[in-house]
Amino acid sequence: MDYTQKLYAYLERINEKLHFYIDSIEEKSIVSEAMEYSLMNAGKRVRPVMALAFCEMLGGDIERVLPYACAVEMIHTYSLIHDDLPCMDDDDLRRGKPSCHKQFGEAYALLAGDALLNLAAEVVCGRFDDLEPHIALGCGKILFTGTGIDGMIGGQTLDLASENTQISLETLKKMQALKTGKLLTVPCQIGVLAAGGSEADMQTALEFGTAIGLQFQIVDDILDVTSTEETLGKPIGSDVANEKSTYVSLLGLDKAEQTALEMQKQALALLKPYGEKAWFLNEQVNALSTRNK
Amino acid sequence: MDYTQKLYAYLERINEKLHFYIDSIEEKSIVSEAMEYSLMNAGKRVRPVMALAFCEMLGGDIERVLPYACAVEMIHTYSLIHDDLPCMDDDDLRRGKPSCHKQFGEAYALLAGDALLNLAAEVVCGRFDDLEPHIALGCGKILFTGTGIDGMIGGQTLDLASENTQISLETLKKMQALKTGKLLTVPCQIGVLAAGGSEADMQTALEFGTAIGLQFQIVDDILDVTSTEETLGKPIGSDVANEKSTYVSLLGLDKAEQTALEMQKQALALLKPYGEKAWFLNEQVNALSTRNK
Repeated sequence: MDYTQKLYAYLERINEKLHFYIDSIEEKSIVSEAMEYSLMNAGKRVRPVMALAFCEMLGGDIERVLPYACAVEMIHTYSLIHDDLPCMDDDDLRRGKPSCHKQFGEAYALLAGDALLNLAAEVVCGRFDDLEPHIALGCGKILFTGTGIDGMIGGQTLDLASENTQISLETLKKMQALKTGKLLTVPCQIGVLAAGGSEADMQTALEFGTAIGLQFQIVDDILDVTSTEETLGKPIGSDVANEKSTYVSLLGLDKAEQTALEMQKQALALLKPYGEKAWFLNEQVNALSTRNK
Repeated sequence: MDYTQKLYAYLERINEKLHFYIDSIEEKSIVSEAMEYSLMNAGKRVRPVMALAFCEMLGGDIERVLPYACAVEMIHTYSLIHDDLPCMDDDDLRRGKPSCHKQFGEAYALLAGDALLNLAAEVVCGRFDDLEPHIALGCGKILFTGTGIDGMIGGQTLDLASENTQISLETLKKMQALKTGKLLTVPCQIGVLAAGGSEADMQTALEFGTAIGLQFQIVDDILDVTSTEETLGKPIGSDVANEKSTYVSLLGLDKAEQTALEMQKQALALLKPYGEKAWFLNEQVNALSTRNK
């Protein structure tokens, strides 16, 4: 099986499971429709794929991590819905389609975001699956600590507070580590936990996710100045227009690209000890480095 | 110990624990300040008190249910913050003080709401306490099923969809059972679960919470037409102004009061089998019936 086949196999299983959760909703409404619209909107599923790949690299069954991987994707999706709202980034486009509030109105988009975060908690607490209590709580603790006020939301807060302000590279790094970094370390760590990995594996997952997260953000910042709206599926140049400090504005394009490359090397070095078993993650790291959206 | 003393003892323990969670936040920011502002804003704590009282009535230690009781209050608070936003009810006042977005701005209020819902999940998954896995997952399942798209958020959706529309009593009942009812059945049920109660106790908790929830909503609807802004701490007459269907508009004031009284009797009857052990809940039911805010 080559990289693309394996990726599609993962994606198929993730999308099937996400559909299962959405289909399990009893109260069908405009809000459940909005949840489905945003959750099933052709996302790359980078985060759940990482959870499955980490779990499998350590010899674990992907079915054991799948619920928590789906919960990560639900939280990623809700954060995009709320980020796009007029009182936040006020973005009309997401993945080439109208953003949730453009399609359903602000009130329903707000509730759809809330409901997706809540659904992640329902999944983790075993509303839909027969879960192993220790793994469910362990993954839930990693997940929600990473997405809350001391994680992703803390990063969004720093981001808001630094709007229209020149921030230092140090502040940008902290903000990025929380805002986008946590949602990449979390899936690696829950993959380790579900596979019954060691403390050392957990540390590797943390460092790997951190490197990938930083690389991911730098590539995002680079694409915002080098891509086209058509390719990216959302407006380009928005960072410059909003006078946002980015890795490109603080480091310059060359240094930003160089740092992204260093992170890629660091991530690959972390996978070395796993040898052949890390083949998929190796290829994924390289694919993420050359992505154009 | 009389009712007021016992109530204050419960309130003290609940507020101490809520403070502990807020103090445990590492990333202090305007959002953590907004979370504290809304969470510690002199709420009546009806829901967590019910959880503690149910647990104790069944011989359980209140410390075992306290984390989940606090999680219920966090979710209640986030729902009020988001409900007050301009795209929802657009309310400027809450408990006699500026609502969260009036005090901190819309973007930070949105994030504070998200962070409180997320914090509830952090609590349930044991980020701050050493929890018993089966009780944590059991309570989490009851809680988040009750607050999500098939519970509270489902009710908020029905509420939004019926704005400026004359709805039937049947629709109003369904909406109320989800929107406000679930957040009153949930604490009773987690009280039973944490105390190790029986299936029959769980059924009683469900029926008791349902009766109390209906009574609670009817009294709310009555106060909206009979109270003053000063007493209530928020504008009165808003249901009429917004042409909202309420128990008062659909049943008339007399029939609404009569139904509230029936619910009170039903709740008291459900407590009968517990005899003396139900003394506090008995008094609470009566106190809720005669409340003026």
